[in-house]
This record gives sequence, structure tokens and C-alpha cells, in this order.
Amino acid sequence: DMDKDQTCINAIRCLSADMPSAANSGHPGAPMGCAPLAYLLWTKFMSYDPQDPSWLNRDRFVLSNGHACALQYAMLHLTGYDLSMEDLKNFRQIGSKTPGHPERDDTPGIEVTTGPLGQGVANAVGLAMAEKHMAATFNTSDFPDLIDNTVYVIMGDGCHQEGVSSEACSLAGHLKLGNLIVLYDDNSITIDGDTSLSFTEDVPKRFESYGWETITVDGLDSDITDLEAAIEKAKLSKDKPTLISCKTTIGFGSGIQGTHGVHGAPLKPDDLKQVKEKFGFNGDDKFVVPSDALAVFREAGAKGAAAHAEWKGRFEQYKIAEPAKAVELARRLSGKLPEDWRKCLPTWTSEDPALASRQTSEKVLNAIAEALPELVGGSADLTPSNLTQLKCSSDFQHGSYEGRYFRFGVREHGMAAICNGLAAYGGLVPFGATFFNFIQYMLPSVRLSALSHLRVLYIMTHDSIGLGEDGPTHQPINALALCRSMPNCLAIRPCDGNETAGAYAVAMENGHRPSVLVFSRQGLPQQDGSTVDKVFKGAYTLVNCEKPKVILVASGSEVPLCVDAAKLVGEGARVVSMPCMDLFEEQSAEYKSTVFPEGVPVLAVEALSGFGWDRYSHAQHCMKTFGASGPLKKLFVHFGFTPENISDKANGLVKFYEGKPVPSLVNRFE
Amino acid sequence: DMDKDQTCINAIRCLSADMPSAANSGHPGAPMGCAPLAYLLWTKFMSYDPQDPSWLNRDRFVLSNGHACALQYAMLHLTGYDLSMEDLKNFRQIGSKTPGHPERDDTPGIEVTTGPLGQGVANAVGLAMAEKHMAATFNTSDFPDLIDNTVYVIMGDGCHQEGVSSEACSLAGHLKLGNLIVLYDDNSITIDGDTSLSFTEDVPKRFESYGWETITVDGLDSDITDLEAAIEKAKLSKDKPTLISCKTTIGFGSGIQGTHGVHGAPLKPDDLKQVKEKFGFNGDDKFVVPSDALAVFREAGAKGAAAHAEWKGRFEQYKIAEPAKAVELARRLSGKLPEDWRKCLPTWTSEDPALASRQTSEKVLNAIAEALPELVGGSADLTPSNLTQLKCSSDFQHGSYEGRYFRFGVREHGMAAICNGLAAYGGLVPFGATFFNFIQYMLPSVRLSALSHLRVLYIMTHDSIGLGEDGPTHQPINALALCRSMPNCLAIRPCDGNETAGAYAVAMENGHRPSVLVFSRQGLPQQDGSTVDKVFKGAYTLVNCEKPKVILVASGSEVPLCVDAAKLVGEGARVVSMPCMDLFEEQSAEYKSTVFPEGVPVLAVEALSGFGWDRYSHAQHCMKTFGASGPLKKLFVHFGFTPENISDKANGLVKFYEGKPVPSLVNRFE
Ligand SMILES: [Ca+2]
Ligand SMILES: [Ca+2]
Repeated sequence: DMDKDQTCINAIRCLSADMPSAANSGHPGAPMGCAPLAYLLWTKFMSYDPQDPSWLNRDRFVLSNGHACALQYAMLHLTGYDLSMEDLKNFRQIGSKTPGHPERDDTPGIEVTTGPLGQGVANAVGLAMAEKHMAATFNTSDFPDLIDNTVYVIMGDGCHQEGVSSEACSLAGHLKLGNLIVLYDDNSITIDGDTSLSFTEDVPKRFESYGWETITVDGLDSDITDLEAAIEKAKLSKDKPTLISCKTTIGFGSGIQGTHGVHGAPLKPDDLKQVKEKFGFNGDDKFVVPSDALAVFREAGAKGAAAHAEWKGRFEQYKIAEPAKAVELARRLSGKLPEDWRKCLPTWTSEDPALASRQTSEKVLNAIAEALPELVGGSADLTPSNLTQLKCSSDFQHGSYEGRYFRFGVREHGMAAICNGLAAYGGLVPFGATFFNFIQYMLPSVRLSALSHLRVLYIMTHDSIGLGEDGPTHQPINALALCRSMPNCLAIRPCDGNETAGAYAVAMENGHRPSVLVFSRQGLPQQDGSTVDKVFKGAYTLVNCEKPKVILVASGSEVPLCVDAAKLVGEGARVVSMPCMDLFEEQSAEYKSTVFPEGVPVLAVEALSGFGWDRYSHAQHCMKTFGASGPLKKLFVHFGFTPENISDKANGLVKFYEGKPVPSLVNRFE
Repeated sequence: DMDKDQTCINAIRCLSADMPSAANSGHPGAPMGCAPLAYLLWTKFMSYDPQDPSWLNRDRFVLSNGHACALQYAMLHLTGYDLSMEDLKNFRQIGSKTPGHPERDDTPGIEVTTGPLGQGVANAVGLAMAEKHMAATFNTSDFPDLIDNTVYVIMGDGCHQEGVSSEACSLAGHLKLGNLIVLYDDNSITIDGDTSLSFTEDVPKRFESYGWETITVDGLDSDITDLEAAIEKAKLSKDKPTLISCKTTIGFGSGIQGTHGVHGAPLKPDDLKQVKEKFGFNGDDKFVVPSDALAVFREAGAKGAAAHAEWKGRFEQYKIAEPAKAVELARRLSGKLPEDWRKCLPTWTSEDPALASRQTSEKVLNAIAEALPELVGGSADLTPSNLTQLKCSSDFQHGSYEGRYFRFGVREHGMAAICNGLAAYGGLVPFGATFFNFIQYMLPSVRLSALSHLRVLYIMTHDSIGLGEDGPTHQPINALALCRSMPNCLAIRPCDGNETAGAYAVAMENGHRPSVLVFSRQGLPQQDGSTVDKVFKGAYTLVNCEKPKVILVASGSEVPLCVDAAKLVGEGARVVSMPCMDLFEEQSAEYKSTVFPEGVPVLAVEALSGFGWDRYSHAQHCMKTFGASGPLKKLFVHFGFTPENISDKANGLVKFYEGKPVPSLVNRFE
């Protein structure tokens, strides 16, 4: 019924435009332009249960142009999710379920947090990879479609211009992700004006070069027939993701439709009124949906609930036929680890030989992978350097989607955004690896892991000037500081094998935040007294003494250096290992005081920027400049990271505070 | 002479392989594979003067796969640059001119610092844009080719996979940069193994979608005829950049050629020996170049010197015909600003109305642009939000390369890498703009600005939770901390119009480092006592009092908040404005003590992460979590950024230290 379709679409347009007007802030243009896309997806294609947004086999929807979230909120409300008209009226207010960009934990039905452009479509590649992997793992010949959902995306010009989307979409083509369908809101408008200002590439041709199917649909503003056929066709493409370029008009209906004026500000009251009247609605109505339109949306929601009920029935049969798999699937979806999982962790004694922490990481990672099949991941083309190869599994490739090792290519940013999608799908704990310095290539996605509470493990090797000859282009001087300054993100830099195991234990058991695991290229001795449990405290006394007169605090490769320096200092030098400043920050003042007792001066030693170390030290021997290219031992001498120099500094610090009060590092005014 | 060509190429291969062997570290594979490319460029195509690497009209060469730098060092030595055989033998040693990746300031003839993949080719787009702009600005009808150089690039698979190269190459196609010729080392090998693991896209087709010419050349390992023809053809492409896919064999000559085993480790001694013997050289020779080959290279260098001499003659005529332009060109190339340039800066008084610092930035930026034609730049599609439009100039587009305003599109990372190229070309001071949070999209390039001492202005607006409704996805909680922790980079967050002028003055006068200029979305009152000069100190006393009992220190939008809070505290509250922590760090202890006198507790207030603030405060009221979506005034209340709450905290801090020694913030053990 084409009239009814248009009524529904126009109802979406009006409701989406009402939200920014009520908030006096927001983006009406993209929702009004994309309403036909959303209408088709939610009423004719997507399978979802508004009453249970966590249903495993739901189709995933990602709004990559997250600023269009009024559209997504409208659809969630209309189809019957727990998002009331009152919630829509609270658009962009503090504490509302309808923030300015969609956030995964705030709103039922939001799969991933979007807004920073390009992230959503890259997340969607991760969601599609997750589906392929979970299907290959849990489906059986009798249950070939227990997991068979599709991932749908709406994205705009902005997402296409971001490099992260190029990276992820190239990989999606390589992996032949036929379960990924992207609707491109091709409206020829960006914030600066017409796309002809800066963006004149042939997008479909680019996607064909990646190995995608492409379809172009025109005239969408008032006729959805062709788009419906295009999506049908896309669903038949089993070995290729599909890009459907949808020629739309931004702000369709507005007096200034088709211009960037309608992008980022509410419609003027008169304009909003004429939009509604043009569409045959009452011009003064606000947040009103015609009942015949609402019925269509609610029916679509009910259809999805029925599909879910049917699926539940199948899952009951699956439980009987495949009890072990069913139990494991339920556990994995809960995000919980087996009670005794830590048993898999290897341990070291101080008798064991020195190993680079990337080597102890290799052992721990593989031990966990053996024990926990939800652990999946890979490296951005640095497998032999990051030492992340999973020995218990093969590559995830087309034809072997059961493989748990991903070949991300030299695509750090895409990798991290994909990891967010993998984690958001459920049942998986993803990791991504590269050199620590190149965390800067993927920082926007790491930040979104943290903001949206996703358990992603970032395995970062070559963690300081200790990487040696590759030089300052590769030496991560400020990478640890930038991780430490990020809320809800743990940066952990272990000093030996046991701390490496502890770092992974922390990462695995912190289900609500990402961890950045920072490992050395060079060998590190196994310490006496390091344990998994101590890492959970963030910092602890590794080498104690009676009546400390000075404390050396360090992380990673500078811990053994401080142990040696403490010996040179002689009596009264304590060494504190601080693998994770973030976790230490969370400890009680009482515990902190046992580590940093009053009156004892503290010297921090880290072969990275000292920025931030004032919090837990009175002086620092850290990097103040970029590094240099040379053999690591010479670099450590060059930059003063020798036991002799550190002990001299420690003695100097003691002298400096003689007769002076030593500021407390724990008893602070908060 | 095909035999002589091959002798020369094989000499390059051997010399490039000798370097990693001597260093016992490095990458022989790519240099050996790319030797034919380098040979052709340096002996038949590029115009350069080894005795004057700064000649304006030299062709630019960028080694985007920077790990292949042994190749570049070999070419610089062979053609007669100031890079001795001794320098080559010191490959990857501390303080050498031959670090592990090419660095702009360390080695004559290195145009840009490369190694982090994808950066070089994006820099090259900037170099090509710079040439187009400088040519359009300084060439005349009588001197149509005073500036007419070409930019040549060698890049590998890794560079192609990085999103930053996609962003920049898409823009290069849009801008029709016919002066850009990229040789793609298409060797089908990456570190993880064969490119078929992760990278199966049709690269030439992708570049065609961007609007590039593409040519594919096969059989290059032992026959350069086709490549020579391809480069000739590329030079004829005036309105399109050209990608030449060069099928090469990584490590050609090695017993393990064509495998990733030859990528990142020196050849085994036996292998190196057989390579040399296979090529007809003495297997035991190291760092030896056949004299007939050396003659070819030196002749090429001499040819370039002659071209330079000829150009100098033309420039003498230009000086006579266009004296004003010639003087201006010389000034701009020197990097120096006119003596009295600061006169152009607008000033404000406390009587002037409140303005967002993005608005005062708009005024200052335009005033400078009017005075200093070397200022060029643009926004990553946020012009109306960043307020960076240049009123004195038009867009830089094909057909209007004299325009100084760049439409970067939604390509933050490409923008920053391009800015590095623009700055590296000479004669230009580039700026790039986006929301402050999205500095995280371009951090690898900002870091390279800092590492390679490039004066780039990063204009970052919407600088805190004060951006309001767009919410936590857009609120840059840790962006300031990550800039502050970066060596050789100034992060400046002004509190009003005069400090905004000061921020730009600092940025313009710091020719050896980038500046991140951080501006508010919301209105800020004009302070009494703020000046341009004071910003150069990093921090200063804005509101003084007799005998301060407490100091409130803040930057940007929290400065006026502290001014109001100080009034509530009453007697004894000093307000310090700290627009630039980095600059303050560089001041004398004496000056620092005048700002933070002994015995006075300091409260830092910043609507961003407090990480790092322990250095200059005893307590902090900052953000400990991500932000929220809501109207800015409500957000400030929600997160406690009110005069009442700040004055309460200040009073609490005073109380906390009653009877206790107040730690010194200045007198530290270093
Ligand atoms: Ca658009
Ligand atoms: Ca390669």
C-alpha cells in the first residue's frame, strides 16, 4: 500500500523533526532524508523483538551517522521498544534515554555507540564477523540457522570519508561478509556544503574494488519500491557484502531541504509546521503519530516477537540435541567466565629465564585461548612481532569462519572498531594487537570501547624506547599517559611473567571496560614476589626493606632496573611495581598508604613520558623528549636508565628532603 | 644501456642490504625490491641538487614505506648528498644521520619523517598541494615554471591499507593533483605473510574511483623499460595524479626472496654473500660500490646541480621582474614573520562582550590570514562550527589553486598528514581544524608534526563538556592531557579574546613545533588583565590579591568560573590562568614561584580529565568520567562546575592544609 507507506515514512519524518525542536538542538536533516530507509528496514526486513533487545539472533542495526539518532529513537519507540514518547521529548537532556548520539548502554535497541564518524560501519563489520564466527561455532547440520542474522547499516557521506571505514570495508570485502548490508544515505550534502567541495570519488566503484556488490537506487524520497527490491537482492548476495547507494534529499519536506542548512539545527517553527501540513498532518501537533501508521510499526514489532518465540522453540530443541553447546553458548552470552578459569594461567618463578613480556604474553594468551573459546582476535599485520598467533586455532577466513585468529591487515583503526563490534555482538572477548605507539592510529575506537563499556583487549608490544633501532617514529613516549588519562580504560604494563598473567586476568575479569596490555620487546627477568593477585591492586611493594628511606616506583621494563638500582642504594630502598595506575587509583587510602607510607620520598622511573606521574611520586626519571634510534642497551644508557643513575637520583632525592616535610601522596584533599 | 642499469640497480641492492647487516637490525627486503624504482627516479626523472637539499624547485621524494630507508640513504649517498659511507655504516646508531626510519631533520635530502605507515603518501599529497599553491601564487606569465616540481612517492602494501592514505588519496584525486606520481611497491607480501591473508582489493580500481590515472608494470626485477615508459606517461597526466603499480619481488636476489622472511631482519651472512656473487660483485665486499655505477649516480647528481644553477639564473631575472614577489618568497621560505606582524592581532577589553573562543579565534585567524599570506588551511568539514573560513581568500580547488582555504572533507587524519606535507614544503604555515575530541582521529600525524619540528596549527573547537548536547561521544575528556604529554607540542587553551590572540602568536612564532589551539563552543567573558605576552609565559596571575591563602588555576572556560568562585571565597583568593602548561613548564623556577608562591594551596579546575594536574595543583576539580548529553549550563551544574562548588572546594582545601605544610609546586628535585 504505497499511500500507507508514505504516511508511515512521513510520520517518522515528523517525529524525528519534533525531537530537535523540543531540545532546541540536534539534527533533523538526516532523519528526514533517511526515513524511507528506516521504514523499510524496520517494517519489511529486520527481525527483532522490541521486548527483548538482547535476543541473540536479532538482526543488528547500526546507525553509522549517529547524529541522525532522532531517527533511530523514533523507530525504537514506534516499533514498541521500552522508549516512551516522554523519552523522545527528553531528547538530548541529562540522564535521558535519548542522548545526542546513540549510546549502547543508555537505550534499549542501540547496538553500538556511534557519532564519531566512520566508527559505526566499522563496528558493523565486526558484528558481521561475529555472526559468521558464532554461526560457524554453534550451528549444526540439524540447526543450520540457529544463528543467521543480518547486519544492516545506514551511513552517510561523512562515514565514507573517514579512513576507518575504508579499512573496515576493505576487510569486509576480503572476508566475503554476505551478511552485511549497508544503506548509504547519498544526499550530496556535508556540513561545509555540497559534497562536490571535497568528495567526488566514485563510491560504488571503490566498494567494487573491495569486493562488494553495489546497487544504486534513485527517487527514494517518495517511492520505496526500488529500494525494497535492492535490499531483497542484497539478501541474496551470500558471498559479498552489499552497498546500496540511496539517493535521498536531506531534510526532505523542509523548506530548505537539500541544503546543509537543514543538517545540524532544528527546523524553524514555521518550517516544521509546513512540513507537517505538507504531509497531511496537523501542523500544530507535536509528538503525535497517526494511529494507522503506529499500527504498522507495532505490527512489525509483533512480527519480530513472533519470530523470536519461534526461535526460542528451536533453541529448546537445540538444548536437547546439543546440551554441551547450549550450555556453553548461554555462558558465553552471559559474559561470565568459568569459576576456575584462572587455573589456566601459567606461572613463573624467579628461577625461570628472562623473557620479553611479549613472550610471556604469547604464553598467557595461548593458555587463555585454549581454556576460553570466546577469546578471538588478531594483529594489524604484526603477528610475528606481537606474538599473538593462536596455536589452538586457525585463521578466520571465508571458508573457515570458525577460525579465531583474525588477519586484520595494516589497519589498526579498523581493527579496534571491529573489536568493538565483536564485543558488542555478545559471546566473544576480542583482542587486537599492534605496536604500542600505533595505539594512536586507533584511539577513537579505544575511546569508544571505554565509553560503551566493551571488554576489548588491546595487546600492545614494543612499549618504550626499549624497542631500540626502529627509533623515535616507533617509540611510544606518550602512549601510556594517553591511556591512563582515558576514563574507564585500564592500562597495564607488567614487569614479568606473573604480572603478565595478572594483566590478562584483570582484562578478562573486567567485563565492563577495555584493557590496554603493554608489553616489552626486550627480555625481562622473572621477579620474586610478583603474582596475579597483586596486579589487581594496581601497585604493590615488590622489594621491601625495614624502614624505607626512599621508594622507587616503576612499571614494566623499568621495574628490574629499579630492583638493581635499589641494591646500589643499599639499606632502605623499597621497590614498588605499579603495573596499573588506574587500578591503584581505585584502591583504599589505607592500602595506598601501605605502599607509599608517609614521609618516604618516591622516585618514579619509566622509559616513557613522565606526564601524570606527579600523582604517585615526588620526582621522576622519565622521558622528556622523543627517543632515538639505536641498540636498546645503548639507548637506556643514553637516556640515563641505568641502575647507577637511578640510585644516584634516589640518593639525591633523599638528600633533597632531608629536614623538609615529604608531601603525602595518599592523604589528599579530594 | 641495460647492463649498466642492472649493475647500478644491483649496487643499490647490495649497499641497502649491507646496512641492516652492519646494524644487525633493519629491513633489507623492501630496498632490494624497490631498487629499480629508486634507480629510475634518481637517475632519469628527479631534479635535485645534492649540494643544496633546500632548493625550492627540487622534485620531492617521499619514502612512504619508511622502513625501507636503507634504500633512501643509499640513494642520497650515491648521488652525492652529504651522507658519507661512514654514515651508512652507522645505520641505526644513536646520533647517526641514518636512523631506523627516515627523519626530516637528521639527514640531508629527507623531506618528511616516515615509518608509521600511510603517513608518507599523505604528506606527499600535502607537498603536491603546496607546490600547486606556491606555483599559482608566485609563477607569472613570464615565469610560468619558476615553481613546477613533481612529487614522487614509493609506497608499499602497508601504506595502502592504512585509512589515512585512503583519505589523502581520495582528496588528491578530487583536487586533480597532476604533479603527484606514486610508485606502488606491489610485492604481495606483508609481515604476516602473503597479502592474500587480508588484502585482496583491486588497488588500481580503487584509485580510479578516486580520479587517478593508474598504470601497472610487471617484470620489474630485471627490466626497467616499462616502468620508465610508465613514469614518462605519468608526467604527461596534468590533471590527475598517477598510481603506478610495480610488481616487484621483495628481497630480490636473496635466497628467500619473495617471502616475508626477508622483510624485517638482516640477510644471513651466507645469503648476503651469494646475493653479491649472483650480481657479479665480490661476495666479501661490504659497502663497496663499483666505480662505473657510482659514476652514473654522481652524474645524475651533477645534472641536478646544473638544473639548479639554471634555475638560479632564472630566479635572478625573476627578482628583477617581480621584486616584491621575490622578496616575499624569500621571506616565506626563511620561515620568518615580518618584524611587526603582531600588529595585526586584534585586542579586547573587559568592556567587550562575551564571545566563544572559537569566535575570537575566527577574528584572530582572519586578521593573521590578512597579514600573512603563508597562512593556509581548512577544516575537516566543520567550517561553520570551527569558524575557520578565511574571508580574504577563496577555496583551494582545481582551477583555483591560489585559494588558501582547503576543503579537507571529513578526513581528520588525512588533513593533519597533509598539513605536515604543506609545512614541509616550505613557505607555508598550515592549519587544520576539527572538534577537539577528534584530534584522536589524527594523533599519529600530530605526533609527527611534533617529532619532525613542523609548524602546524591545529584549531580545535568544542573543547570540553561545554559543547553540550552532542554528548560524551563528542566531549574531549582526555584530549588535552594527551596533547600535554606529547613532547615538542604546545597545547594552548585560551580563556578569552586576548589569550586567543596570544595563542596564535605563540603558534606562529614557534617555528619548530606544532601548536594545538583549543577553543570553546560557548561564550566566554573578556578578562581584565589578559594579554598576548602573558600567554608566552604559559601561566600568569590573572586576579591577584594581597597575601593569597588559596590559588585557583584553570584554563579556557574554567577561568571565568574561577574568577567568579574567587569572589565567593572573598579575601585571599588568587586566580591563575594557565593557557599552556607546556610553556609554563619551560619558565624559570623564579617565575614559577611568583605564580605559585610557597605555602599557598592550589586548586585546579578544568572541565576535562585532571590527569597531569598534580604537577601544578594540590587538588583538582576536573572530570573523572566521560561527560553527558545535555544543555551546557545544566552539564556544568551536574558536574559541579559552579562558582559555589568551586569556592566551597577552595575553602575546603585551605582548611585541609591548616596546620600542615603545603607542598611546593616549584621547588622540586629534578
Ligand atoms: Ca551527507
Ligand atoms: Ca609489501
